[in-house]
This record gives sequence, C-alpha cells and structure tokens, in this order.
Amino acid sequence: MDGDRNDETAVIFTSRLTGTDPAGYAEAASRMETLAAQQPGYRGIQSARGTDGLGITVSYWASEADAVAWRDQPDHAATREAGRARWYAEYQVVVAHVARDYRWTRG
Amino acid sequence: MDGDRNDETAVIFTSRLTGTDPAGYAEAASRMETLAAQQPGYRGIQSARGTDGLGITVSYWASEADAVAWRDQPDHAATREAGRARWYAEYQVVVAHVARDYRWTRG
Repeated sequence: MDGDRNDETAVIFTSRLTGTDPAGYAEAASRMETLAAQQPGYRGIQSARGTDGLGITVSYWASEADAVAWRDQPDHAATREAGRARWYAEYQVVVAHVARDYRWTRG
Repeated sequence: MDGDRNDETAVIFTSRLTGTDPAGYAEAASRMETLAAQQPGYRGIQSARGTDGLGITVSYWASEADAVAWRDQPDHAATREAGRARWYAEYQVVVAHVARDYRWTRG
C-alpha cells in the first residue's frame, strides 16, 4: 500500500535519557503515546530505543497545524517540562512534510 | 542550534526482522551506514531498534535527488535485495521534506 502517508506531517523526535527515574519516564512515555492517539489529525506513531540509549519516535499528523496543536497540548507540554527537568539529557525535534512512502511485506 | 536541517530531505526507514542470520544483518547494516556517509549530500543518520523488534533509521540528505541517488546506489540496492531475501519481515520508507527543527541539550 504505497502513498498512504502523502501530505502528512512527520514529527521525528530523537532523545537521550539521563537515566534518572526510568519508571517515571516509561509511564510518561506510554501515557503520551496514548494521549497523542486521541488528538485531532493523529495518523500513527512508531518508537524505538536502542541499547546505546538513542530513542527515535516518529509521529504522523494530517497537517502541520495538527502537529503544532499536539506540541501545545497542555498535558503534553507539562510532561515535556518534566522531561527537561528529569529524564532527557538531550533531544531533537524535526518537523517534515511527507512527500511519498513505500511499504514492503514478506509475501 | 535550531533550523540547521531546514530544506533537507529525511528518509524514515522502519523495519521488522525475520531473525534469520542476525550476524549477517548486523554486518550489512553497519556497512550501509558507513557507505551512506560517503554519498553526496549526506547530512547524517540516526538509528534505533527496540526490544520489541521495531527498528527506525532516519537518514538526512541535502536534497531529494541525493536521497534517490542513495536509494539507487548499486551496493545499497544489492544489500536491500539481500534484506528482502533474508533479513526483513517488513519495512516502510517515508520520504519527507524538513520544514524546521529544534534541539535541546541539558545545560
């Protein structure tokens, strides 16, 4: 199924953790994924954290305005502040407009 | 340092592995990251694979043409075919144009 993400906005969030309060971080991360899925324009999320500590989360939105609304959602904003205070050593957000996509599944 | 990725093209590659030949996969993945870094327009790569098996690799390119050239690079194309034959259960490629970015580092 190609092209189904065309015109979406992708938010690529990469982070490294301090290692402080891992249980609190895990709870918050899970809660934010659930909350994101309830927002207008949500199209999906994928997340991975490797053994070297780098985490990558990509969320997809129907429009850039939907992505901005999620950034500014009050519970999300408060959790991000908690993340700056405790969990994150560093993070980067890249906002990008999807041009095309391609999917392959083993037959 | 904000905005330094503006106008780049991001290639978001997500995959799940079959579990066949993990050593061969690891060698190929490492070799492809090294090869990508030698290509024209390469701007960086980030990769993570979580314990649930989902892997996310994001590579950044100066232009979409550079990203397409990397897709078509012969050694890369051959390795992708090997991946379809052996390593990948499924994968998805999303090509997106970077609009803006934001970076935060613990002070």
